[in-house]
Amino acid sequence: MNHRGRIRSLAKELQHRSIPALLITHLPDVRYLTGFSGSNAALVIVAEPRLAARMFTDGRYTVQAKREVQGATVRIAPKFALAEACAWAAERAGKCGFDRTNTTVLTLAAMKKAAKKSSFFTPADGIVAQLRTVKDTEEAAYMRRAAHLTCSLYESLLGWIEPGMRERDIAAELEHRARIAGAEAMSFETIVASGERSSQPHARATEVRITAGDLVTLDFGIVLDGYCSDMTRTFAIGFGEKPVPPRLKQQWGEQRNVFEAVLAAQQAAVSAVRAGVSCGDVDKAARSILDAAGYGKYFTHSTGHGVGLEIHEAPRVGKDSKDVLKAGTVITIEPGVYLPGRFGVRIEDSVLVTEDGAEVLTPVHKGWMEL
Amino acid sequence: MNHRGRIRSLAKELQHRSIPALLITHLPDVRYLTGFSGSNAALVIVAEPRLAARMFTDGRYTVQAKREVQGATVRIAPKFALAEACAWAAERAGKCGFDRTNTTVLTLAAMKKAAKKSSFFTPADGIVAQLRTVKDTEEAAYMRRAAHLTCSLYESLLGWIEPGMRERDIAAELEHRARIAGAEAMSFETIVASGERSSQPHARATEVRITAGDLVTLDFGIVLDGYCSDMTRTFAIGFGEKPVPPRLKQQWGEQRNVFEAVLAAQQAAVSAVRAGVSCGDVDKAARSILDAAGYGKYFTHSTGHGVGLEIHEAPRVGKDSKDVLKAGTVITIEPGVYLPGRFGVRIEDSVLVTEDGAEVLTPVHKGWMEL
Repeated sequence: MNHRGRIRSLAKELQHRSIPALLITHLPDVRYLTGFSGSNAALVIVAEPRLAARMFTDGRYTVQAKREVQGATVRIAPKFALAEACAWAAERAGKCGFDRTNTTVLTLAAMKKAAKKSSFFTPADGIVAQLRTVKDTEEAAYMRRAAHLTCSLYESLLGWIEPGMRERDIAAELEHRARIAGAEAMSFETIVASGERSSQPHARATEVRITAGDLVTLDFGIVLDGYCSDMTRTFAIGFGEKPVPPRLKQQWGEQRNVFEAVLAAQQAAVSAVRAGVSCGDVDKAARSILDAAGYGKYFTHSTGHGVGLEIHEAPRVGKDSKDVLKAGTVITIEPGVYLPGRFGVRIEDSVLVTEDGAEVLTPVHKGWMEL
Repeated sequence: MNHRGRIRSLAKELQHRSIPALLITHLPDVRYLTGFSGSNAALVIVAEPRLAARMFTDGRYTVQAKREVQGATVRIAPKFALAEACAWAAERAGKCGFDRTNTTVLTLAAMKKAAKKSSFFTPADGIVAQLRTVKDTEEAAYMRRAAHLTCSLYESLLGWIEPGMRERDIAAELEHRARIAGAEAMSFETIVASGERSSQPHARATEVRITAGDLVTLDFGIVLDGYCSDMTRTFAIGFGEKPVPPRLKQQWGEQRNVFEAVLAAQQAAVSAVRAGVSCGDVDKAARSILDAAGYGKYFTHSTGHGVGLEIHEAPRVGKDSKDVLKAGTVITIEPGVYLPGRFGVRIEDSVLVTEDGAEVLTPVHKGWMEL
């Protein structure tokens, strides 16, 4: 990874904004800029008069920091890495930016104390987050690899799932296969929601057994080389050779209707993706179809979000989002309809924004399917 | 769980501190007080003149909030749950406490805007965190159950591990067994660190294969009913019937020496635990033994931390920690020695503090063992 190039881009951006230095404590930002993947770090980038970068961590990471960090010197702080970082910055710059979105009120108090300068810290939100929204070729390749592995895990799992299994067993099997295939971790808690539970967008996998007539929503992702994947599919548990039981006929038809509406909404939103388009317009593409189908009020969340080193990152693909898509950004497209206490459907792809459209990173079957 | 009782205890504490209301946004705090386990919530507790509690969340959690929340009314906010919470609090109280340790600088700005009252918010750090340090009988039972399952997973895994396996396969197998046994999730990324990699306290499981002569550190925990377990064991991969190869003889002996020193330190710290003792003294019990053995400077972290709904919570069991242990607190005791680039040893138990000592929640074999 081109960490030195990223730090140089950041320094340029700081010069452009007349911010002489920046303190970075958000770990995914630190990893993006230096490659360090430990759990404690404070990174200072001094942009002027001469580029200087130093990362402060603690004794647990002596070996790892040496091996991983690029583009910055490393300091193992015996006591409080953040305080040392602030003092170091204060010696080198008259002002230092920090990100209010991931700095707690208490941390800011500690930073001010350590810098020993009044009004040294100045708000500078989302500068690294913005850089991170454009994935470079190497990052795009990592994300593609993570997403493709996610697809093949899904496909292999479908051949294994059988009615009567517990949601929890399905999550366990999926996660085991992911690990064996090389995933460092799941990118979030795997969602397996069947039957009535599919009406909860964020249901955990439980003891409930999947049963003929159910819709099952499977929402999961892996972390590979630090990058997250994210995908959702909803499928039905059919009745095999038997006909649909009379008491379930109406529900079964309704499930299919909702499914097709969500699928159309999802495809419309994917088709709307292109560099230069606003996130609000992508959301609208999905929402207007669900509105027209009469399900708009059951689509209770945003259409998607950015994904990369974090499972949720900029931009937000929601109703009023004015963020404009850039080539290289990876976002999810995941409309859903949830009929409280009855059932729900969500279909999600991760897509890489290109100049003239979108590369679907998760191109695995998403149409109606009965197991 | 006695959520209503917890909210009443909190209200009493607020009255005692003359804070008429408290805004709670830290999710484990919200879960502790109401039972809600979703990913977006803002809870307001009004203590005076009359106890009132309302939790604000969004449309994804309509069903779940209704089912889970106890002791507070629920409001599904169409736009921004936090802003509604602040406005609601501002109508009912002249002042509102908030926790600076988990409120970002930007969030505080949004809170102030929503409350439309100057100096409405006042720092009130760690009030719920302090309540949470004392586990009630029901919580202790949950934690015991999570810890005991952790022990049996470890024991069953030992019978399965063989030299030549990759660290990653061991992590995958362990996590799969955990899931099947009912764990909702792992409480953190499972650490399997063998050979030279055991010298990194926080090493991830990699492609590396465990080999005769290695020490292997296994640090893991599960989440069961929301509560986390945490345990570390270090074991050796022996040479079977064969003698130790001459080139490894010195290292093999040294590994054993370090192991016994860490074990002695760990046992001393466990013995030091008792209600009324300071966390600094518990840390000292471990550290002084490692200092005396000449390994003190390779013990590069704290002795332990509180554990409960979060894997790291109050109190910190470190060098200068003045926190005094209370009966009902659960902490980890996990000294370690890491010889950079060579090998490392860590041994960790979770213990429940009692009036006259400690109940070890993870009472599985921790002495020297060769597989």
